[in-house]
Amino acid sequence: LEKYDMFTNIDESPIYPILNPRSIATWGASNNLASMGTSQLLSIKALGFEGKIYPVHPKEDQVQGFKAYRSVFDLPEVPDMALLVLPTKIVPQILEECGQKGINSVIVVSGGFKEVRGDGIDLEKSLVETAEKYGIRFLGPNCIGVINTHHNLNTTFLPYKSTAGFIGMASQSGSFITQMSDYLSNFGLGFSVGISVGNEASIDIVDCLQYMAACPHTKVIALYIEAIRRGKEFIETARAVAPEKPIVAYYVGGSEAGGRAGFSHTGALAGPDRLYDGIFRQSGVIRAESIEEMFDFCWALGGTYNPAGNRIIVQTHSGGPGAVAADASSRAGLELPKLSAETCERLRPMIPHTGSIDNPIDLTFSRNQQDYMLGIPQVLMEEKDSDGLLVYFLIPTERVAATLIQMGIPEDKVEKEVVGVIRELAKIVGQLVEKHKKPLVGYTFRPRRDLFIRLLQENGVVVLPSATRAARAMGALVKYVKYRNRLTGVDQKG
Amino acid sequence: LEKYDMFTNIDESPIYPILNPRSIATWGASNNLASMGTSQLLSIKALGFEGKIYPVHPKEDQVQGFKAYRSVFDLPEVPDMALLVLPTKIVPQILEECGQKGINSVIVVSGGFKEVRGDGIDLEKSLVETAEKYGIRFLGPNCIGVINTHHNLNTTFLPYKSTAGFIGMASQSGSFITQMSDYLSNFGLGFSVGISVGNEASIDIVDCLQYMAACPHTKVIALYIEAIRRGKEFIETARAVAPEKPIVAYYVGGSEAGGRAGFSHTGALAGPDRLYDGIFRQSGVIRAESIEEMFDFCWALGGTYNPAGNRIIVQTHSGGPGAVAADASSRAGLELPKLSAETCERLRPMIPHTGSIDNPIDLTFSRNQQDYMLGIPQVLMEEKDSDGLLVYFLIPTERVAATLIQMGIPEDKVEKEVVGVIRELAKIVGQLVEKHKKPLVGYTFRPRRDLFIRLLQENGVVVLPSATRAARAMGALVKYVKYRNRLTGVDQKG
Repeated sequence: LEKYDMFTNIDESPIYPILNPRSIATWGASNNLASMGTSQLLSIKALGFEGKIYPVHPKEDQVQGFKAYRSVFDLPEVPDMALLVLPTKIVPQILEECGQKGINSVIVVSGGFKEVRGDGIDLEKSLVETAEKYGIRFLGPNCIGVINTHHNLNTTFLPYKSTAGFIGMASQSGSFITQMSDYLSNFGLGFSVGISVGNEASIDIVDCLQYMAACPHTKVIALYIEAIRRGKEFIETARAVAPEKPIVAYYVGGSEAGGRAGFSHTGALAGPDRLYDGIFRQSGVIRAESIEEMFDFCWALGGTYNPAGNRIIVQTHSGGPGAVAADASSRAGLELPKLSAETCERLRPMIPHTGSIDNPIDLTFSRNQQDYMLGIPQVLMEEKDSDGLLVYFLIPTERVAATLIQMGIPEDKVEKEVVGVIRELAKIVGQLVEKHKKPLVGYTFRPRRDLFIRLLQENGVVVLPSATRAARAMGALVKYVKYRNRLTGVDQKG
Repeated sequence: LEKYDMFTNIDESPIYPILNPRSIATWGASNNLASMGTSQLLSIKALGFEGKIYPVHPKEDQVQGFKAYRSVFDLPEVPDMALLVLPTKIVPQILEECGQKGINSVIVVSGGFKEVRGDGIDLEKSLVETAEKYGIRFLGPNCIGVINTHHNLNTTFLPYKSTAGFIGMASQSGSFITQMSDYLSNFGLGFSVGISVGNEASIDIVDCLQYMAACPHTKVIALYIEAIRRGKEFIETARAVAPEKPIVAYYVGGSEAGGRAGFSHTGALAGPDRLYDGIFRQSGVIRAESIEEMFDFCWALGGTYNPAGNRIIVQTHSGGPGAVAADASSRAGLELPKLSAETCERLRPMIPHTGSIDNPIDLTFSRNQQDYMLGIPQVLMEEKDSDGLLVYFLIPTERVAATLIQMGIPEDKVEKEVVGVIRELAKIVGQLVEKHKKPLVGYTFRPRRDLFIRLLQENGVVVLPSATRAARAMGALVKYVKYRNRLTGVDQKG
């Protein structure tokens, strides 16, 4: 696909200068802390952006500690990018001036364009005309800007609070770029890049897809979609990208009420749900049914290995959580194979008579944590008739502590010992996945602050916050491999 | 329904003495901290149980600080309840001795009965025969015990870490009784009673349903079900209970793999999914699709008001979260009505031109928090053409702080001021719901530790952790009212 191949040189992407500027001119920032433009300037500063920042302000000499300029024509250089946070009516004129100055890349944060209909439609057209006249590509209008954690860049009006991660996201809602960093941080996740596309008058979600395909920091691509504007290009691009990088989309707008919201929000008409379902399937894009599921899928796709097939073993020490995972797996299109005779033989000494070596493998609580985290998953990873593991994670620290006291550890040393045990077990699980290169998706109902869960995350283990979510994420892995095989012709269906 | 009416006197329930004992004899507790029976004894102690505790132990004089007795016959009184945490083979004999002593109520924690099939089936039969001989009713075998937060009773082997709440739960998995208290605590929720029913050889889920129907602390009933043993009685009881108290069930086992897990776990054969779907609908039981959804529904049903119909307004200051709520509402069977002319008139001064007074009502971020939390929801609550509100909750504290600094608040006082503002807004939202007695279900993607979210919870506001979950919970409220009207003949369909 010619168009996609262009972007093996990522800097040819129209959004490259917006995500990787060496210098930024800002409009709308002032010494009023309550203004949106000021917040956005301060966000850029806060994430440690290392390039030049030029606030343009009609009256001030200094804005938030930066030398300010009266107009774009006073700037000492042509900045790589302009950020416009201005009242709607002034935007066309400032864009015109940016063009005259020779600025090629702009983010138009301001709203009041196509999304409000009426006059807004004409106003947006005038932006596009100006942009075309000067060869400008712009993001928005009605967007929140971009985050590029690997370039210390955050142009949104809220601080970015998570790590530089592997999820590249393009979103038709700015909220899901700027309001999710604490959510992602809870799971040890973060954006590589986050792009709020707004009304997509110039740069659209297809452009973003191409950029993220080429972005070396992006392992998996997330899309929040209310309407696809360039359908054919979307499908072609996604089909070219998906075999290399998984794409997960959450689509809103197919339901009647959702469609109305989709319309008013970014000014595009949403299509029927089943149409989008077909587009995604054809494109090899994995569809998520909620925002949280989209990130769950991204985590699994970027954080563990791909399964060779859909045969999954569930490991648990608690009957209910095992049964739920089994039920949810089945509903997610996974199979729970019976274990081979050889595996049963190897497991038997480790499973008590009240437990089960049927699948789910239920150890009950009577076995030690070492068997649970090392011996048993090791055997299960080596099972030839299985393609992946779902493992229930819960260490009842009170019981581990009681056991250590019983073993003679002095009470004042027990807490430290428990932490040591947990640290070791989390490491073991992480190493196990790396060794066998089969997918392991963990699940728990523990709060994210739980030490074991945090340490599992730090050791690169995917641990979702419920059995159902874990099973569905494993289902997404299986679906991805199926899509990839279809797109690359591996399964002969082309 | 005669059987149900019996339990207006709650103390006639066979599980009453198990949940409300004045004295407990325990088997299996020792001075070995690592043993399960010891953990269970210590749990009883930890929650501050105020009655007598009699450990029975063949050798020890003292067990965990309590005077121990060599056999049941040495006990100074007939205890209200016996807790058996013993190797499988000893259980029949001890149950026999309990009967001889005159104990009527027993929890059999031990596993190795019907759930392991083979000999276990006969062993379980012998328990039932002994119980019938002496008039004993027992919980289990293969269960984890009970929690009655309003009686300071926790017989499970893990500590109970949440408040005395309004959710009564009976579960065919002990894990969901004993492993969920941190999860519930995160949402400010707790059990009134939690009952692990195990193999249900004597007391079953129908008995529990009857108890919880009469329990004054239980506002809503949660059931985790792998198989219903007394189908007819379940339906009759649920139909009698549901109009008074909502019942939410999460059923596992309808899928092929889930069915296998359901079998091995408590020894009952699960039925096809659509059969259970019919049973629940007929019984007026709201079906949840995951554990977390079960608790979401319980929270909404016990924590806010019932809607008169299915017309819902979505309020947001962020386009995407509004669109997601609208889409999910539509999929959950809710309608998003257009607002009346009068309401639009009242809202207009509070909504900026970039916002929307279509439904969802989108204020965008440019309005102040006071309007968002007070003025606008007040108007929306008074809308005649709406039955409830879904509200997106996010206070961007950084922006509130910036605004306060701009207003002249000294920087060192700002944090305290922000906390004050948030505290006040959370209170206002809580009062609003109480005043209008319409359902309000909030949603957020913020972590539960977020101050505003915690304070909303403390003010009695239901705030679910995603738009999709909130919409589905609102859908459950609508469904409950529909079921209740059908069961009580309000809608003439009987």
